[in-house]
Amino acid sequence: MNYRMIGYLLSIIMLIEAAFLSLPMITAFWYGESILPFLYTIGILTVLALPALIFKPKNKQIYAKEGFVCVAASWIVLSAFGALPFVFSGAIPHYIDAFFETVSGFTTTGATILSEIESLGRGILFWRSFTHWIGGMGVLVFMLAILPSDDGRAIHLLRAEVPGPTKGKLVPKLRRTALILYAIYLALTVIEVIALLIAGFPLYDAIVTSFATAGTGGFSVMNDSIAGYANPAAEWIIAVFMLIFGINFNIFFFILIGKIRDVLKNEELRAYFAIVLAATVAIVINTWQMFASAGDGIRAAFFQVASIISTTGFVTEHFELWPTLSLTVIILLMITGACAGSTAGGFKISRILLVFKNIFREIKQVVRPRSVNRVRMDGEVVPNETIHTASGYLAIYLFITLVSLLLISFDGYSLETNITATLSCVNNVGPALGSITPFGNFSDFSVFSKIVFSLDMLFGRLEIIPMIILFSPSTWLKR
Amino acid sequence: MNYRMIGYLLSIIMLIEAAFLSLPMITAFWYGESILPFLYTIGILTVLALPALIFKPKNKQIYAKEGFVCVAASWIVLSAFGALPFVFSGAIPHYIDAFFETVSGFTTTGATILSEIESLGRGILFWRSFTHWIGGMGVLVFMLAILPSDDGRAIHLLRAEVPGPTKGKLVPKLRRTALILYAIYLALTVIEVIALLIAGFPLYDAIVTSFATAGTGGFSVMNDSIAGYANPAAEWIIAVFMLIFGINFNIFFFILIGKIRDVLKNEELRAYFAIVLAATVAIVINTWQMFASAGDGIRAAFFQVASIISTTGFVTEHFELWPTLSLTVIILLMITGACAGSTAGGFKISRILLVFKNIFREIKQVVRPRSVNRVRMDGEVVPNETIHTASGYLAIYLFITLVSLLLISFDGYSLETNITATLSCVNNVGPALGSITPFGNFSDFSVFSKIVFSLDMLFGRLEIIPMIILFSPSTWLKR
Repeated sequence: MNYRMIGYLLSIIMLIEAAFLSLPMITAFWYGESILPFLYTIGILTVLALPALIFKPKNKQIYAKEGFVCVAASWIVLSAFGALPFVFSGAIPHYIDAFFETVSGFTTTGATILSEIESLGRGILFWRSFTHWIGGMGVLVFMLAILPSDDGRAIHLLRAEVPGPTKGKLVPKLRRTALILYAIYLALTVIEVIALLIAGFPLYDAIVTSFATAGTGGFSVMNDSIAGYANPAAEWIIAVFMLIFGINFNIFFFILIGKIRDVLKNEELRAYFAIVLAATVAIVINTWQMFASAGDGIRAAFFQVASIISTTGFVTEHFELWPTLSLTVIILLMITGACAGSTAGGFKISRILLVFKNIFREIKQVVRPRSVNRVRMDGEVVPNETIHTASGYLAIYLFITLVSLLLISFDGYSLETNITATLSCVNNVGPALGSITPFGNFSDFSVFSKIVFSLDMLFGRLEIIPMIILFSPSTWLKR
Repeated sequence: MNYRMIGYLLSIIMLIEAAFLSLPMITAFWYGESILPFLYTIGILTVLALPALIFKPKNKQIYAKEGFVCVAASWIVLSAFGALPFVFSGAIPHYIDAFFETVSGFTTTGATILSEIESLGRGILFWRSFTHWIGGMGVLVFMLAILPSDDGRAIHLLRAEVPGPTKGKLVPKLRRTALILYAIYLALTVIEVIALLIAGFPLYDAIVTSFATAGTGGFSVMNDSIAGYANPAAEWIIAVFMLIFGINFNIFFFILIGKIRDVLKNEELRAYFAIVLAATVAIVINTWQMFASAGDGIRAAFFQVASIISTTGFVTEHFELWPTLSLTVIILLMITGACAGSTAGGFKISRILLVFKNIFREIKQVVRPRSVNRVRMDGEVVPNETIHTASGYLAIYLFITLVSLLLISFDGYSLETNITATLSCVNNVGPALGSITPFGNFSDFSVFSKIVFSLDMLFGRLEIIPMIILFSPSTWLKR
């Protein structure tokens, strides 16, 4: 294990976070609020990280194990220090609450422990929403985009941080791939800001809402989430952008370079839109009598479907009052999540497709034992290795969910609360049902449960493996 | 597809059912009740099945596909005709209700649509409980035990009907294996009857309760299930026997032939007892203040844990009133189920062990890519094929559960009701929480939902694959 190199990379991550913190600090200054919470945090990060930069490691070689450890550790470090401005400003007095909120931000979950949001400072709320934007694409991807690096070792970082089973690099050079990803991400965010401005949002609200949409996070600066704006046009805009940020970023790259045929034949994308359409239609029919007009009903259903499948978690309706069929659809969407290689959470549609195709293959094999069946995706044969990894991921994903369910049950909330809250955190969605309610929050859970939820969110965002490797004794024991 | 042979085997199954029906008929006669419901059913079965026996198929060859189709079809046929005595006697007037009850019986689920049980005839209740005993070990295994057969084709039937990933035959000859399994099954049932007689049960109650325990079914002749007897000694006896019938029958065979070392090193058995102990301790502590004495609390917790993990579903307590932690433990036990090769349902502990060991193997592989890691069970290397089948089974099991959850949500019951009812049926347990309550029943669900639940129970009992093959178009289309 190359400890020096891991320490070096973590120090760079801390300095990047310090740089990111200057944006909310400027915002606080602009609105005449205290900049001290940010200044202190930037100071602490710089003091702790600078020495490692002076004593650079001679051996820069890292392998898969170090890659995973580095990614998992850096997300914990980012959250641990990112929580400080909330504590220093008094917005969230208890550190564990602030840690939960920050993990929820970086992992783009959007579950909150705050009930009164609108009275908080503009600077601190900017930071809260900005964590979504940073976490959505990934800090290590950002680091790869700005720093020169050797592809051979950096691929381990990219693989560990970008969600889902994707085909890897867009272009041969890793740094260019990271740069293209961030450029697309930034461009789409800016387009959403402009669209929201046209719909009548103030600039500040347009920016923070776009951060939360782009990262598929879901933090809002309104107590009533997007419902607080009472702006139907903005709801349509946000819904469409939530769906867009749930699409594999490779698709946008293919569009940019004119490979439209690759886009049209993409099975994950087609399945994604099919699920969105089916779920919206089901909810519209199921909630028909609850809305004043067809337009209201369709907008509410479409918004909520886009919000949940993209694992953003913005809310416009008290959907906990919808009929059980709609609630079941919402829970299933929480689990599916959106496309691999997007900023969304969940199990990912391409994994579901792989697992399904494998089931059909196995059944075919039983019915006709001597036939040769292969799983194909987008017309190409999928290696068995990839399929088994997806199946294994399902097992471990289910295990994490069930163990969390057991651990948080000590608090004594209802089964419905516990099941939806756990699914919400593991899949990085945000809202839940039961005692929490879509507009509600996680503040009443015990400190222990908040730590479990924080780990769930990190497990979900990093797709489990890096976290398990970080906490696995075999990683740290020498033999 | 050898249709003639499948028709022939189904006819034999129908005649076996007719023979089984003579027992409840004798019981009805003994208690002075009408024997006509049974006589009619026996008549119908015989008239329909006899012609096929006269025109025996020349080609008796069947392959894996026919084996699966035959097992799935025979379970549906058994349930379809087994429901008739309930309808003819007026005990359950609606056919779909009677079909649900019979599927619940044969699949050893124990979910009921009856609320008033004690007023029904002794003969019809005998049949209801007897379906558990028949379904527990399997009708096709019974057929193999009594009829001379060619091992080459019969192994497909045994594989399709005996639950879980087991090593196959106990002894080289298949018919001997089937005979040994049934002999152990019968002997254990008789021992339980004697134990319950000693505890003060009337003979009739001892027999029907033992049928339901042996098949890990859970139908009781009391409205309040086992709580109706208010007999603590009997509760301990039943709890112990529920656990016994959740053990792989190979273990009893090993004990009989003196291979005690094989028993002691059996990992599934050790995990089974460890889970029972941990769950019991957790529930005892969690419900400590709810019971008058430590003895009552321990008995209640142990009984319910044994009942749920063995997927029997007998009830002594209103456990829906227990704290959320205990309820979560109960839901997790529903999912795990007991050992492969037993009469219990659920996912099976050996499968869980396989899936887990595979997860650890994959993580080791990531940490040390060049190391060679193999999954071992009971000291022996497990073929990758077996592991991938277990992982694939998990995916399809989860899919069936989630789709059922969606389909039954049209009825509008709470999420808690729907989730626990679905898990209860898919895992062949019986009781559920929410509106159903452990002592409650499924009668208020729609006809559509009852059909979904019936299919869930059959999917669960036959471990999905035979049912999917039966309903798969590719099985029936010629090409």
